[in-house]
Amino acid sequence: MVNSLAPVRRRLSVEDRRDEIVAVCLRLIGTRDWDTVTMADIAAEAQVSKGLLYHYFSAKPELYLAAVRRAATDLAVATTPDPSLSHGERLHDALMAHVNWIDAHALAYRAVLQGGLSGDLDVQLIVESSRAQVLDRVAWDSGLASISPRLRIALRGWVGFLEGACLEWLDSKAVTKEELVRLVASQLPAAIRAGR
Amino acid sequence: MVNSLAPVRRRLSVEDRRDEIVAVCLRLIGTRDWDTVTMADIAAEAQVSKGLLYHYFSAKPELYLAAVRRAATDLAVATTPDPSLSHGERLHDALMAHVNWIDAHALAYRAVLQGGLSGDLDVQLIVESSRAQVLDRVAWDSGLASISPRLRIALRGWVGFLEGACLEWLDSKAVTKEELVRLVASQLPAAIRAGR
Repeated sequence: MVNSLAPVRRRLSVEDRRDEIVAVCLRLIGTRDWDTVTMADIAAEAQVSKGLLYHYFSAKPELYLAAVRRAATDLAVATTPDPSLSHGERLHDALMAHVNWIDAHALAYRAVLQGGLSGDLDVQLIVESSRAQVLDRVAWDSGLASISPRLRIALRGWVGFLEGACLEWLDSKAVTKEELVRLVASQLPAAIRAGR
Repeated sequence: MVNSLAPVRRRLSVEDRRDEIVAVCLRLIGTRDWDTVTMADIAAEAQVSKGLLYHYFSAKPELYLAAVRRAATDLAVATTPDPSLSHGERLHDALMAHVNWIDAHALAYRAVLQGGLSGDLDVQLIVESSRAQVLDRVAWDSGLASISPRLRIALRGWVGFLEGACLEWLDSKAVTKEELVRLVASQLPAAIRAGR
């Protein structure tokens, strides 16, 4: 139970460096063909030795998985609305945060959260669990006490709507963020009705 | 302009064998971890020699791409509705064909059309062009003369709804196919209204 300060500092620093490597990967995934990225490239970009890189991550797929997990967590944190807001405001705020996040991380969003670039089933599981999290939060913010299997189909459809509309919007930027948020939010009542 | 019968027969046979190899790949993509599948596995499954396999496809990514293209084409063909039907009937028929197709090819649908398992941008392009095809057909069947950028965002959202609802339905099968089709179709008018 004795914690000297030194190991705590060292642990934090290890975490920070790990985070930094993962952030570098997320950037590379979003900007380069991941198949052509080598561990040496990653080490160079993260300004660590290859030995140190391997100390943290034994192989490229592990790094990819960490990057996907990081993207999903970042998105979840960024879109957590202020609990003091009303249901309707929470939905608007969460959607706006979602749009802001994907706008700022467009390449990573496309590359990672759209199914991933990897055959790794773990990646698919993270992406699908990120969607389930959005779904559960939306249900909660809509005042739905429980989610029947039929309602889950409708809400999962709406999460697909959100993704599809956002991907198209990233291409065209044809409407303002506020209009996009309102467009997506406007589909939720019909989805909930259909799921009842 | 002289066509002897022999070369024609040989060409057909080449096409058929190529198709067969692609069909085998699609099955393997849907049932195994593609990363662990070797060219030797594919040759064995397709009952051709490795030499012959390489004669048709120089590398695994090329085969993957052909399989994705095949899945997208199959889905497009399967969901082409009878043009003699009314707009509303065409939508219902196309959606029912879509649900039937993904039900029969659930693993390939998940693996291939949900973003693919490959870093190859060509794969993403095929998947996205398959979505655009669904979108254009739905717009046509809904009697929409032209698609504004704003309407495209809303319709692309609806295509996402279709995919999300279908994926959840594949997991739960909580409603009948007819109910799923009606649920998805019921969202289209709201999407079109929001896109105007």
